[in-house]
Amino acid sequence: MAKMRVWVSDEPGHENLKIVERDIPTPGPGQVLLKMKAGSLNYRDSVVVKGQYAAPTVRPIVPLSDGCGEVAEVGEGVSRVKVGDRVAPLFFQDWLSGPRRAEHVLTALGGGVDGCLAEYMCLNERGVSRVPAHLTDQEVATLPCAGLTAWNALNCTGRVKAGDLVVVQGTGGVSMFALQFARMAGARVAATSSSDEKLEQAKALGATHLVNYRTTPKWGAQVQKLTDGAGADIVVEVGGVGTMLESLKAIRIGGFIGVIGVLTGGSGGEMPTTYIMGKSAHVQGISVGSRDWFEDMCDAVEAARMKPVIGASFGFDQAREAFAAMHAQTVVGKIVIDYSR
Amino acid sequence: MAKMRVWVSDEPGHENLKIVERDIPTPGPGQVLLKMKAGSLNYRDSVVVKGQYAAPTVRPIVPLSDGCGEVAEVGEGVSRVKVGDRVAPLFFQDWLSGPRRAEHVLTALGGGVDGCLAEYMCLNERGVSRVPAHLTDQEVATLPCAGLTAWNALNCTGRVKAGDLVVVQGTGGVSMFALQFARMAGARVAATSSSDEKLEQAKALGATHLVNYRTTPKWGAQVQKLTDGAGADIVVEVGGVGTMLESLKAIRIGGFIGVIGVLTGGSGGEMPTTYIMGKSAHVQGISVGSRDWFEDMCDAVEAARMKPVIGASFGFDQAREAFAAMHAQTVVGKIVIDYSR
Amino acid sequence: MAKMRVWVSDEPGHENLKIVERDIPTPGPGQVLLKMKAGSLNYRDSVVVKGQYAAPTVRPIVPLSDGCGEVAEVGEGVSRVKVGDRVAPLFFQDWLSGPRRAEHVLTALGGGVDGCLAEYMCLNERGVSRVPAHLTDQEVATLPCAGLTAWNALNCTGRVKAGDLVVVQGTGGVSMFALQFARMAGARVAATSSSDEKLEQAKALGATHLVNYRTTPKWGAQVQKLTDGAGADIVVEVGGVGTMLESLKAIRIGGFIGVIGVLTGGSGGEMPTTYIMGKSAHVQGISVGSRDWFEDMCDAVEAARMKPVIGASFGFDQAREAFAAMHAQTVVGKIVIDYSR
Amino acid sequence: MAKMRVWVSDEPGHENLKIVERDIPTPGPGQVLLKMKAGSLNYRDSVVVKGQYAAPTVRPIVPLSDGCGEVAEVGEGVSRVKVGDRVAPLFFQDWLSGPRRAEHVLTALGGGVDGCLAEYMCLNERGVSRVPAHLTDQEVATLPCAGLTAWNALNCTGRVKAGDLVVVQGTGGVSMFALQFARMAGARVAATSSSDEKLEQAKALGATHLVNYRTTPKWGAQVQKLTDGAGADIVVEVGGVGTMLESLKAIRIGGFIGVIGVLTGGSGGEMPTTYIMGKSAHVQGISVGSRDWFEDMCDAVEAARMKPVIGASFGFDQAREAFAAMHAQTVVGKIVIDYSR
Repeated sequence: MAKMRVWVSDEPGHENLKIVERDIPTPGPGQVLLKMKAGSLNYRDSVVVKGQYAAPTVRPIVPLSDGCGEVAEVGEGVSRVKVGDRVAPLFFQDWLSGPRRAEHVLTALGGGVDGCLAEYMCLNERGVSRVPAHLTDQEVATLPCAGLTAWNALNCTGRVKAGDLVVVQGTGGVSMFALQFARMAGARVAATSSSDEKLEQAKALGATHLVNYRTTPKWGAQVQKLTDGAGADIVVEVGGVGTMLESLKAIRIGGFIGVIGVLTGGSGGEMPTTYIMGKSAHVQGISVGSRDWFEDMCDAVEAARMKPVIGASFGFDQAREAFAAMHAQTVVGKIVIDYSR
Repeated sequence: MAKMRVWVSDEPGHENLKIVERDIPTPGPGQVLLKMKAGSLNYRDSVVVKGQYAAPTVRPIVPLSDGCGEVAEVGEGVSRVKVGDRVAPLFFQDWLSGPRRAEHVLTALGGGVDGCLAEYMCLNERGVSRVPAHLTDQEVATLPCAGLTAWNALNCTGRVKAGDLVVVQGTGGVSMFALQFARMAGARVAATSSSDEKLEQAKALGATHLVNYRTTPKWGAQVQKLTDGAGADIVVEVGGVGTMLESLKAIRIGGFIGVIGVLTGGSGGEMPTTYIMGKSAHVQGISVGSRDWFEDMCDAVEAARMKPVIGASFGFDQAREAFAAMHAQTVVGKIVIDYSR
Repeated sequence: MAKMRVWVSDEPGHENLKIVERDIPTPGPGQVLLKMKAGSLNYRDSVVVKGQYAAPTVRPIVPLSDGCGEVAEVGEGVSRVKVGDRVAPLFFQDWLSGPRRAEHVLTALGGGVDGCLAEYMCLNERGVSRVPAHLTDQEVATLPCAGLTAWNALNCTGRVKAGDLVVVQGTGGVSMFALQFARMAGARVAATSSSDEKLEQAKALGATHLVNYRTTPKWGAQVQKLTDGAGADIVVEVGGVGTMLESLKAIRIGGFIGVIGVLTGGSGGEMPTTYIMGKSAHVQGISVGSRDWFEDMCDAVEAARMKPVIGASFGFDQAREAFAAMHAQTVVGKIVIDYSR
Repeated sequence: MAKMRVWVSDEPGHENLKIVERDIPTPGPGQVLLKMKAGSLNYRDSVVVKGQYAAPTVRPIVPLSDGCGEVAEVGEGVSRVKVGDRVAPLFFQDWLSGPRRAEHVLTALGGGVDGCLAEYMCLNERGVSRVPAHLTDQEVATLPCAGLTAWNALNCTGRVKAGDLVVVQGTGGVSMFALQFARMAGARVAATSSSDEKLEQAKALGATHLVNYRTTPKWGAQVQKLTDGAGADIVVEVGGVGTMLESLKAIRIGGFIGVIGVLTGGSGGEMPTTYIMGKSAHVQGISVGSRDWFEDMCDAVEAARMKPVIGASFGFDQAREAFAAMHAQTVVGKIVIDYSR
């Protein structure tokens, strides 16, 4: 039986990641076997590998929710894809349409079930999607978690429209997608960062307003000033405890805050109930998205011939180095893994 | 020139409220003069009288956002009402339709402008609404703030539907309206209180599930249990810092929390960002509502021949006692003032 | 191998329906075998049996989209239900959540695939739903098509709220469900019929306004009059060509017309574009619904302990008579089949 | 008292339009006097001038809903604008926010009240809006009716998002705005026309798919083909009776048709109820929009530095010629009137 190489996390810590050999699975009825071409890392993957993930997680686990593969073999009755198709696995294998449900978390790749850091994956045909033709494999691999999360925040749970002002925080993967998707929708974008150099990169991607939160810690007031007191329509909130209060100050009456990340901590801090009331703020948790939304996003990426921002690329054998780069938080955009290297 | 008696708050504290005499105003073009019949108290009125209200407030101020009056005289060009009509003034005089805007707060009765605790009021005809015919004057007076806030949370910002489970906290005015409006919409209602006696009153109004949060402080988990782990669809959150975490635990994935009140404090506490994300919770500030929504509410109250819950009634001269009763927080439902006594 | 009796339609016409004997199927992985207890008829079933159904239809076909069964056996890996559970098959076996998609029609029971008029059915476990405990088997059998269609029109595509005025046309199955669901949501209901006797039955179910369209053919204007010129919020339109113009006249500016049926014809007539514009009317086609919505409906039916209206009941051997009764259009509410008789 | 020149329509027909002299009005409390700089024509204006307008219309009437003016004088208490501000009058003077209401039609410019074809206008300050700074006066004058109608169809009643396919019919004013707004939102656009030359102009504005409906009368099927059978997300329907059936064929399941115009007739034709059902189509009448939406549109136009398409320009004295050009239907984009000529 043919073998494949697979990264597994057994003990907490990315330095303990190791490559093991496993049998290449055979697709059963309704299943597809994917030869994986590329993967990408998200903050959540590093939390899983650290052993600190709150949601149900199998152990040992193959990490990574995100990848791009080619259909190598199909099981009986498969009709949605055929051998040779390039596809992306869905983050939530069972979230196909409609609102999120509790049980979806049980089929989250690289958490509830094994993920993409393997030479082959066997999935139900429902759990993969067609992808934009103009993207490289590594670019496709950035879409399932970071891309779809930003898409959901702006176009599904939030409702961005032309002329809106969108705030994106920092220059990580989700924020760069949010910047690009907001511009694609005709919105203006205020980007925040602690680094003027990174702000220039955001400007090159279309950011219309730049805010250095190191020199302007009260950046919420600064956003108000930039908009003559009107405030932002949408904040894509990735900071958590340390940024929420400024986000609430930044938005307009009735503005939307998509709560995506907890880079500065997920609990503690002070609960700004009074601001939520005073602003009639709409604060909502965002959790990746459904296959329907993924397909909509792919249509939009294709129509605009948009290219995701890749900040660093590693080979399959360099997974530990890729996680180390994620921890360092110095990369603008996505960290990817090229399985052909 | 004819005179009227008016309560004014000049120095903080309800014990410093005093009656003064003023000229009865003459309605200008587009204005109406109301002979006031009744008023009702809200938590916000007591904060205003204490001098602790965060929003712009004139001083000295005539308190009370809520009342019921009869059109005594109309100015030139008035077409929406006629002499003899019974009406209620709108909480936000300028919020007629559509989403809330920043400037509406400047015309909030008993805050931005003088309120209802007066024998006569002069308002723009746009700022009053027809009211349900089957209600007494005192019952009408409960609708503009507490009634509309509950209506907005359930039917405008939230979207209650038959079969939903709605959580209402305690037995104050907004919560009792929320209970009744939820039942009117075919929803089930879990009521929380620290008192079994008050819970029985909630049950009599239609509550289907009762939770004593003194004996069951982890009432969020209790709501989950009552729904076989599904969770509540909507929480009408009036508690603030002290209840938000349990509210987040109580809701289903994708559930809605209407943030209305801060009875336990408006800041401090711990910000539960992780819960907002984990639940894909929709948390939104609620701030009374528009004239369109008020009219919709009146249609619903009339169709169901619903009667607001009045817990205590005082005469016009007993305004100080009415405020004292509000502070004591022992009344189930609304505290009203009958101007004919 | 054990045998079951199955009604099939091979030649057009209900008089050509015949009973055949087939093997009782064995559930494969993920499948469940249902012992059917009851079925119910919809207008669409009679169109299918007449051979006039526009959507893809297998031939010979086992008719009926709607039924109620008990899980008799489960295949490998089934986790959503267990032997002994009472369930209803979904109209669209593959429409589980989110918006309707083109491919759902291929798995519509009694159309794209065999339906419920059989002693046993074998379905994927995803394609059945739990049902309200307080209903009889025959009552459950009325829910999948007529019940869910009315629910969708009022609560999903339309957005009924307390105080609305809803118009229901005639006293067929969908209209009676719409009447009951509208009342459950706190709405008022204007019922139309050509028979005063049937209108009295509608009144007994809660209709607040009665319109005899034989004596008042311009019933749209009549609805306007009943609402002091405001118009209806929602029309549940089952008539098609012959009623659409009156429906447009009946609604308020911005009102909703859920287009469900074509009892008076599906084409021909005059297209009232000018009315759609003048009223800013929202006209939308309704096509049963998803499993998520079915479950929401069951929650609501259970919370209200609502009972569907059954107008006539036949035994399993009387399927031809049941279809004849459907053609006669004299029955108020649903026509059901009791498989125990 | 100073005089102004004003075009009035007394007898039906644009050849009977005549210039009269009137007193320049003095703004009362809350009013502003505008010195008009430019106007633009819409199909509706020509129907009014023909005397065939269905909605309430004063006679003699000053035509034109659309214009651009400068604040020349303000009445007592005016706070939203100041002398020297450039503004556009709102189509519906009283539709400021929220959904459309029946009474708005009474304050429609150039219909319910006198319109813009005058050297000066006196309006309530509520009825004018700030406008994008980068536009010429004539460009501003194209926004109030045609611009806002297209904006409403795509961004308010419809909900365009990046990646959608939008169909625009012909190359009139609304259609060209719809093309530009759809592109601004990241959507693809299929433009139809009877002229290849006009289609090339649409292509130059960003149309991604071109359909000549003279050579391809079944253009609905053609749109399906262009999208691999998926169908269009949105049709901006300006044709009425003669195009609706193809529009229904063109859309996807659940697609949106914004019903705006009746260029081919407003009644007659065949009502395609079956298609509305089969497609779960969302068909909705569009009627210009509110001030809130106008301001949102201006933000978007400004953010994108978008320029309306002007096809022909006339001097103030050439109003009759401008109407004749409108009747000829040969102009791509808007017909404007420059009051400085």
